Amino acid sequence: MAVVHKSFKVQSNRIPTFFDVTENVQEILKTTEITNGIVVVYSQHTTCSVFVQEDADDVNYWGTKLLLQDLVEVFESIVPTCRTEGQYLHPGKEHIEMAKSRDELPAWSLNTDAHLRSVIMGRSQTIPIFNGAMELGEFGRIYFADFDQTRARERTVIVQIIGE
Amino acid sequence: MAVVHKSFKVQSNRIPTFFDVTENVQEILKTTEITNGIVVVYSQHTTCSVFVQEDADDVNYWGTKLLLQDLVEVFESIVPTCRTEGQYLHPGKEHIEMAKSRDELPAWSLNTDAHLRSVIMGRSQTIPIFNGAMELGEFGRIYFADFDQTRARERTVIVQIIGE
Amino acid sequence: MAVVHKSFKVQSNRIPTFFDVTENVQEILKTTEITNGIVVVYSQHTTCSVFVQEDADDVNYWGTKLLLQDLVEVFESIVPTCRTEGQYLHPGKEHIEMAKSRDELPAWSLNTDAHLRSVIMGRSQTIPIFNGAMELGEFGRIYFADFDQTRARERTVIVQIIGE
Repeated sequence: MAVVHKSFKVQSNRIPTFFDVTENVQEILKTTEITNGIVVVYSQHTTCSVFVQEDADDVNYWGTKLLLQDLVEVFESIVPTCRTEGQYLHPGKEHIEMAKSRDELPAWSLNTDAHLRSVIMGRSQTIPIFNGAMELGEFGRIYFADFDQTRARERTVIVQIIGE
Repeated sequence: MAVVHKSFKVQSNRIPTFFDVTENVQEILKTTEITNGIVVVYSQHTTCSVFVQEDADDVNYWGTKLLLQDLVEVFESIVPTCRTEGQYLHPGKEHIEMAKSRDELPAWSLNTDAHLRSVIMGRSQTIPIFNGAMELGEFGRIYFADFDQTRARERTVIVQIIGE
Repeated sequence: MAVVHKSFKVQSNRIPTFFDVTENVQEILKTTEITNGIVVVYSQHTTCSVFVQEDADDVNYWGTKLLLQDLVEVFESIVPTCRTEGQYLHPGKEHIEMAKSRDELPAWSLNTDAHLRSVIMGRSQTIPIFNGAMELGEFGRIYFADFDQTRARERTVIVQIIGE
């Protein structure tokens, strides 16, 4: 039984950005000797999520798969995009003072929608490995989602594999 | 430390269908020597979910536990059942062409609601095993949910156990 | 490779109660020899959740972090607080009879909102351990949430660690 820890980077946009990281995770799995176990694909960022969804075909003008844009639209109706302070309780005054002390722009804290959307979607995905392959079915793809719309950022995708 | 991989089938209806798979998973656990670790109950289908909920008592005329039907009602209000094309962005034209090339009826792709509901609910559940038993408390039951309402289908429930 | 199983208690209020259990989990991790692997923080209670969210600063008069209260507000709009029977399908008559037979007050079963909110949020969180530390990033905190508003209760937080 072994534990393998890897990570890689993705670069988000100022819209909800979805990365199909299936190939990245498969490449990491191939570099190990592990053929049975689990892989945990994980976000340490609290405005990001990892989930498995069908590999849709059509995309919108931004290049976002329509099935993923449908998810954004559902969230837009229940957790609307945060455009200015007062729309949500967070960020409060103390949070903004703390952010300023870290040389962050106050507007960067207007990502309450992203914190809420991503925590509902979940921070990680645990996928069984059987006979050397992840069990994703015929159409399953692993997506890393950055819901933060306040700034483009480099994000870290963490891959932890446990097995034998 | 060992890894055990098993699976079994369930047969869904053309309504959101919930299967209490607790006994199935317990039977699989019993066939192993593992007394401490984790069990991952997992769906490779992208319109299905696995979650733990209280064992409610009353059922509706379809035989669905009322607590699970309440979940369906919540989703009906935020991710309404897809009845015809254009209600969601997905499926787009390219997706329908691809589906036809696989001899699928176009109407089978009108399961956008199921893709969205199931991805919000999550594809798997990780449950600690302690002293030979899953830690489900007094009332916890493991449910496999098929949210796809376009066709009745056989589904695979995957159970991956890691422990010693 | 080893499996470590621990648990500890928290005491909820009659509002959605959030416990930052990060330090508790870190203390448990320190008592083990495990430096690489995963930790599963888990609720066996079906009105409770575990998730990772940013460490917000401001709190409301109840002492709830504003970012967590924003989550409550989102749920209030899609899964309103259950105040009396008939608002949801559950609990039905059979459930109330069963509850009475366990000497439970019928009003304790008016926690349908908590069952639904918590199952959408998820029962557990799986966090990679690397070089002896959980990968929570700069601001990530582990929260155990009790959404049940019908009674104050002692709850058990389960921590299962697998690694080497």
